[in-house]
Amino acid sequence: MDSILITSRHNEQVKQVKRLQQKKYRDQENLFCLEGVRVVEEALPTGLVQKVLFTERLFASPRGAALLEQIQHLGIPHLECTVDVFSQLVDTVSSQGIIAVASKPIWPAVSFRGTVLIADEIQDPGNMGTLIRTAVAAGVAGLVVVEGSVDLYNPKVIRSTAGAIFHLPNWVFSRGHTLELLKRSGSALVVADLHQSEDFWAVAYPPDLAVVIGNEARGVHESFREQADLRVKIPLAGPVDSLNASAASAVLLYEILRQRRCTNTDSVV
Amino acid sequence: MDSILITSRHNEQVKQVKRLQQKKYRDQENLFCLEGVRVVEEALPTGLVQKVLFTERLFASPRGAALLEQIQHLGIPHLECTVDVFSQLVDTVSSQGIIAVASKPIWPAVSFRGTVLIADEIQDPGNMGTLIRTAVAAGVAGLVVVEGSVDLYNPKVIRSTAGAIFHLPNWVFSRGHTLELLKRSGSALVVADLHQSEDFWAVAYPPDLAVVIGNEARGVHESFREQADLRVKIPLAGPVDSLNASAASAVLLYEILRQRRCTNTDSVV
Repeated sequence: MDSILITSRHNEQVKQVKRLQQKKYRDQENLFCLEGVRVVEEALPTGLVQKVLFTERLFASPRGAALLEQIQHLGIPHLECTVDVFSQLVDTVSSQGIIAVASKPIWPAVSFRGTVLIADEIQDPGNMGTLIRTAVAAGVAGLVVVEGSVDLYNPKVIRSTAGAIFHLPNWVFSRGHTLELLKRSGSALVVADLHQSEDFWAVAYPPDLAVVIGNEARGVHESFREQADLRVKIPLAGPVDSLNASAASAVLLYEILRQRRCTNTDSVV
Repeated sequence: MDSILITSRHNEQVKQVKRLQQKKYRDQENLFCLEGVRVVEEALPTGLVQKVLFTERLFASPRGAALLEQIQHLGIPHLECTVDVFSQLVDTVSSQGIIAVASKPIWPAVSFRGTVLIADEIQDPGNMGTLIRTAVAAGVAGLVVVEGSVDLYNPKVIRSTAGAIFHLPNWVFSRGHTLELLKRSGSALVVADLHQSEDFWAVAYPPDLAVVIGNEARGVHESFREQADLRVKIPLAGPVDSLNASAASAVLLYEILRQRRCTNTDSVV
């Protein structure tokens, strides 16, 4: 297999990767694509990588060459393409010459223990990816994606997660179902709301809570707002209307982490 | 002027707007472009808007129509284009039918009083724009852009700032000059560094400080790292290597704001 060079865009393997750029096929085949050296490195230990397509550009970096060796060692099918064929597949301008096809991770049933993030119709792939990366960094236990959000397996989302997609249990539900599950769980629903008087620093966060991050244009949906247990304000010290969705979640999730660390260890004053 | 409809892509006004998509011409003419209803609304009070091009799509929303009335009232030249001509000009998929040409704001001489942000070769326009929006929200006094960063007047940066570009004094300097000015100012240099032991929550931030946000791939440059007065760690509670540049700055700037508010008012515990 090592010696075959794919020279045609009509090769079946190439066509499959191209198809996976569309959500429809990702859902049908339960597969998605990963681009770039670092994210493929991150994916290998998960055992989810099914095959790899690469081009000579991969050897431009020693890290790329080492990655291919690891792939060979693991016995994962790997197919070399001409630069021309490969360039049909990649979404990034500065491709590193590798793309992997992976199975979607399978997560245990939803749980609202600890801090859970709810992405309420987040549209921008960069925002969603950054949200996932930040959530993992801040020790979030899981992500509920409300239907109508951008697909988590969109190539731009995957790239923005920088590998974090493999470390955040996630589930896609309707808004109504999310609210139902949440109510049953006893977890507290937290929404950011500029019209509240209480700054987010001044609120004591319970151990089990779900933070809603609203749509970029419309903010948090009315039904979450109505049923919220805690409404907190991220103060704006200068003349802007709001924070970007991923910045707001970073600020809020790290304040929750700060409080948890303070209470647990007393190491932070 | 109201009655003229621009039907040709070769119209001089259209060609000027198209030219301003390139940094070279933005620098030469000291002008830049603003797209969308909200950002043009934000720009009007600054007096910097020189002219406006629009298309019939603007009237799709009452807010768009009201904006055009305001522009007419202010006596700002406004030219209608056919949808076809207009679509040559805009960078966004979902354009709202308005683009304005504005003079770049002129800021007073650099000052390192209060919290200043240093963007050290930030490459991604979305990151830079979000950084600016977050900085204004967190009460940052100014932004030093290290040469080699993405141009602040890049259309994608402007869009991501959501109007905040008009509220953050900024200057472009070389890294060496930035360090010289900083040293002379007596302001404290703060860098985020994962290898430090002190969590960013546990550090007492002085009134005058400059926070460096490093390049997306390489992090904070060695020369900033060496000369830093405070090295702080943003802890990572889950398996990711780092935070995205704009998430890291949001988290850090809001902790600085929290401490300033605590000390000033005692309203936050």
